[in-house]
Order: sequence, then C-alpha cells, then structure tokens
Amino acid sequence: MIIDIHGHYTTAPAALEAWRQRQIAALGNRAAAPRASELRIGDDEIRDSIQSNQLRLMRERGIDLTVFSPRASYMAHHVGGFETSAAWASVCNELCHRVAQLFPEHFVGAAMLPQSPGVDPRTCVAEIDRCVNDYGFVAINLNPDPSGGHWTSPPLSDRYWYPVYERMVEYDIPAMIHVSTSCNACFHTTGAHYLNADTTAFMQCLDSDLFTDFPTLRFVIPHGGGAAPYHWGRFRGLAQALKRPPLAEHLLHNVFFDTCVYHQPGIDLLTKVIPVENVLFASEMIGAVRGIDPETGFAYDDTRRYVEAASLSDADRWKIFEGNARRVYPRLAAALEAQSR
Amino acid sequence: MIIDIHGHYTTAPAALEAWRQRQIAALGNRAAAPRASELRIGDDEIRDSIQSNQLRLMRERGIDLTVFSPRASYMAHHVGGFETSAAWASVCNELCHRVAQLFPEHFVGAAMLPQSPGVDPRTCVAEIDRCVNDYGFVAINLNPDPSGGHWTSPPLSDRYWYPVYERMVEYDIPAMIHVSTSCNACFHTTGAHYLNADTTAFMQCLDSDLFTDFPTLRFVIPHGGGAAPYHWGRFRGLAQALKRPPLAEHLLHNVFFDTCVYHQPGIDLLTKVIPVENVLFASEMIGAVRGIDPETGFAYDDTRRYVEAASLSDADRWKIFEGNARRVYPRLAAALEAQSR
Repeated sequence: MIIDIHGHYTTAPAALEAWRQRQIAALGNRAAAPRASELRIGDDEIRDSIQSNQLRLMRERGIDLTVFSPRASYMAHHVGGFETSAAWASVCNELCHRVAQLFPEHFVGAAMLPQSPGVDPRTCVAEIDRCVNDYGFVAINLNPDPSGGHWTSPPLSDRYWYPVYERMVEYDIPAMIHVSTSCNACFHTTGAHYLNADTTAFMQCLDSDLFTDFPTLRFVIPHGGGAAPYHWGRFRGLAQALKRPPLAEHLLHNVFFDTCVYHQPGIDLLTKVIPVENVLFASEMIGAVRGIDPETGFAYDDTRRYVEAASLSDADRWKIFEGNARRVYPRLAAALEAQSR
Repeated sequence: MIIDIHGHYTTAPAALEAWRQRQIAALGNRAAAPRASELRIGDDEIRDSIQSNQLRLMRERGIDLTVFSPRASYMAHHVGGFETSAAWASVCNELCHRVAQLFPEHFVGAAMLPQSPGVDPRTCVAEIDRCVNDYGFVAINLNPDPSGGHWTSPPLSDRYWYPVYERMVEYDIPAMIHVSTSCNACFHTTGAHYLNADTTAFMQCLDSDLFTDFPTLRFVIPHGGGAAPYHWGRFRGLAQALKRPPLAEHLLHNVFFDTCVYHQPGIDLLTKVIPVENVLFASEMIGAVRGIDPETGFAYDDTRRYVEAASLSDADRWKIFEGNARRVYPRLAAALEAQSR
C-alpha cells in the first residue's frame, strides 16, 4: 500500500474559515468570540470536500492512506493568545477526526497544537492527549516558530520544548516540524518560510544533544528536508567541525524526510543521498503547488511519479511508500493492523 | 583559467580582529573608538596570511583567480550604527584591496557595504564608489538582513534598496547576496542562516518585478542557491501560481548561482537543473566547512573536483569555470584583458 504522511485539510468547508474570521474579529473581546458549537458543518459537506478533492486525487494516483492534519498555513499561531489557539486547534483537529471517521480506510489524523508565541509548550499537552486518546491521532505537527517568521522561540533543542517531547515519547508518536503562515514580509510562506524552517530545524537538531536526551524521539522534516539533502556535504562537514558524531549516528535514528520535492532531480538527489530508511512518501497534495508542470504534463505535487522513476529497488521503494511510515508512526501501524491491513 | 567568484579574507592578521574588538568595546563612546590609522598591518603579514592559506590552496587546486571580499561572518552589520559599519567596512575593504595589489594575478576585490539595520541603503553608495573607482573592485556583497537573523529590512524587491541597485547598474557590477553572523539563537550562522537567506532572496526576486525595473541588475545567490535548485519544481510551480513568467524568462537573465555545494550529488543536481549560463564556479574556501570529507579523502570545499566530475561538456565546464564570470562581472573581464588574460 501507499501511505502519504503529509496531507492537510486545505479544502475544508467555507464555514471553517468564516468561524475563524469571527474569532479573529473578536480578539480582545472574549464575550464576542464564537463558540466551538457555533461551527456547524454537516457530514455530507465534509464528505463532499474530501471526495471531490483529496480522495479523488488519491484514487487517481493510487495512494491508499493519508496522515491528515489541519491546514498548515491556517494554524497561524501568531494570532491572539493561547486561548485563541486552543479554540482554533480544537475545532480544526475535530474536523480532521471527522474526516478520519468518515473515511477510516483513507485518512488518519495528526494534530495541530494550540501553540502561541511566548507561551509554555506545556500548555499543548492536553490537546495532544485528547487527539491521541479520544481521536486516535498518530502524530502531531510542531511549529518551531509560532511567531510566524520572527523566530522568537528557543531552538527545538532547548528544554523549553521538553514537555511536548516527553508526551511524544510516552505515546510513541512522531512530530512533523511544520511552520505556518509567515507574517514577516521577507519570507514568502510556501516559497521561503517553509523551506527555511525545515533547514533551521535540521540544523538545530544537528547542533545539539537532543536525541541523547530523547533517544526515541522522532521528527519528520517536511518538504524533502528543506535544503538539508542538497547540502548534505555541508552538513556532514559542519557536524565534523562541531565535534558531533557522523550524521547517520547523530541524527538518522530520529530525523526523517518526506518526499514533498516537486521535480524528478530533487527526488533523485533525496533518495540517493539520504538512507532509504529515512525517507517517507508524501505529497502535501492540494497544498503549496497545485499546478500542472508543463515539462511533464502532470501535477507538480504528484510525487508518486518521481519516486516510481527514482533508481530504487522494489524493497527500497516499499520502505518509502509504506514500511518506513509503519515504523516511524507505530500508532498508524497499529491502526492498520486493527483493520487487518 | 579557473575563477573562484566567492572567497572571503577569513585569514586576515589578528590585528584586524583586535581593532574590531576595540571598536565594539567603544560603542556608545565615540571618543574611544579606534581610528583606521591605528590598524597597522604590514605587507609581509598580508602576504604571509594569503600565501600560506588561500593562495596555497588555489595553487594546489588549480584555481587562478579569486573574487575576494571581507569575511562575511565578521561583517556583523547589526553591531552599532552606520558609523560603526562605515569604519569597519572601510578597513576591511582596504585590506582586500591590499591583497589584490600584492597578488594582482590572483585576487580581485568585492566590497562589503557599511549597512546598518534601519539605515537607508543610500548611505552605502559612497563606499561602493570608493571601492569601484579607487580600488578597482568588481562586485559588492549585499546583506539582505543587516539585523543578523531578525529580518527587519524590507525584501530585496522593495524600492528601499533601489539606490544601491542604481549604482550597481551604473557601474555594471553584480551583487552577491550574502548575510553575516546570525544573532538569532534559532539560526546557526553557516548551517541555517546563510542557506535560508539564499532561499529567501531567491523567492523575493521570484515574487516581484524587480528585474523589470532593473533589466541589467545581476544577483549572485551563493551556497548553490540555498534550497532553490533542489526545489526547482516547487519554484517553477510557485511562479506559475503567482502568475509570473517562467523562471528562465523571469529571473535567469539576472540571477546566478555559485557552486559552493560541498558534495558531488549536490553539484550534479545544480548543473543538471540550472542552465549552465547561470552557474559560476566558487568554493568559499577556508570558510564554513574546512574539514576533509572522510568519504572522499578530499576537502569538502574543494568544489573543483565536483565540477570536474559532473556530466558537462568541455564548453559548458569552461562557462562555469571562466566564461560566466567574465560575463557577469564585466569589470573583472576588463581587468583580465588589461593583463592580457
């Protein structure tokens, strides 16, 4: 089977955005804030939004299952304070849960966290608990920069983040390290901020002993690892200069890259440079890059084609499409086994 | 011949750093600031610092000429105000000029600018004038983030930067877009901030009409273009989504990438994905990554080996090693012609 570990609910019914706009309009006036119960979206609307979009493309492309989380650019953790993010994360996660309930063979949830700049990440633990225990989610998305492009939080290696890591280890769930909208005019959201965050997170891990403290902690760096695989020699050399162990030993039990790289030469490099055990299939479809590549005639984000065309043995391709996802997301593996898949 | 368009004077005599430390210690107390004349470095010291370092490696590696600028990480434009940066840029540029005078066949200068966060870039024009007219420099380094990792300046496409571009166009000199030390704990200087800045600058150009306003303006994006070539499909797709022309038409008359990518697969991707006319040989030797790669037994930054091994015709390899540099740096071409080279 083919598991896409990076999908967001970018096509949620319009009522969700309207609710968010009401929430933003009410900032500073708690009495005017909309209640979660005021967001009314019927199952049929959810079904339509999925069947005509993600599920249609998954069927066309032969993708069986997607790890599905709230729309990344809409997390916008910089808006309001903790209560704002808590209410927003709650409704967004619930919608992903409903998608997974409606299409249990095709979607499994990953949680957005109620992060807020300057707020102790410990406050996110209750939402992790709820999403794992009540919803059966198999992962979280962790935003290393809830300020939205101002980078005011400590690096991921800082003890500041440890309460989240402790819960991740307890539940044996990975985190995808994923920023949200940039509100810094220097950084285009999907063309700079996302990729920069990937590179930044990788380097924060490299220049730390984080995985000595948490040997079973697992991070998925999306968008093919930002600049990391392309500059793998640079990073190997920097690890050496910083007196760190070789990258395979220092990071590759804990750090994984997805295949959201939207052309063949990029996937060829990724699968050549990075050990196959550390590459997980993903497309982030109906996401940042929705067009058709005139050079190929196919969608840029139809990453299955690139992985199929890469120089890989069948066994290695299976790891990228399925095996690694089962290993890195044990709760996904358990959910599949419960379905006899 | 082989021209390395990206070298910094990372090995300057210790007196330079001591002078800078005095300057920093005197911040806020103008009377205590050291004068430029108090920096005393003899020609022999300069000769030694170059002959035992850059020139030794250039000879070993068969590199004929380096475009040489002050040490990037030491520019530290965030320190002090305009006067601090003006004095510091002045002494650093003068030292590079002296290197070029002492070794006219092997070094030609590129200027560091006296940038300072929040200060109008127009204030940099006098130093550009001085370096081009008095020193014969052939390029400048432009820092898109003089704050050092807080990204408080407008994007490079903003009219804010136009006074610098007007002078560049007048002199027909390119700018390498190069940040300095990060003072944001999230960003490791050479492992994250440099690469992020490259990606960011590229995307700022993509999402703008800058080169409609300045059709002859030329930017060199160092470190192999950050994440751009690895994600070329993403950027082609983003250009499409943003209703921009195809990248070749939109950017590639004006944007160039160097070869500071420190492993073979990275250079293979770069030279495959980016038109050969847009790739310029560089090593940034004795820079960010000074070690020996245990996988090859050679220095990570010995980039000539990777370019030699890439799948390129002799004519294309000549463009990368020499031809493109002559075209993108016309004042370099003129200087070489004056030497009958």
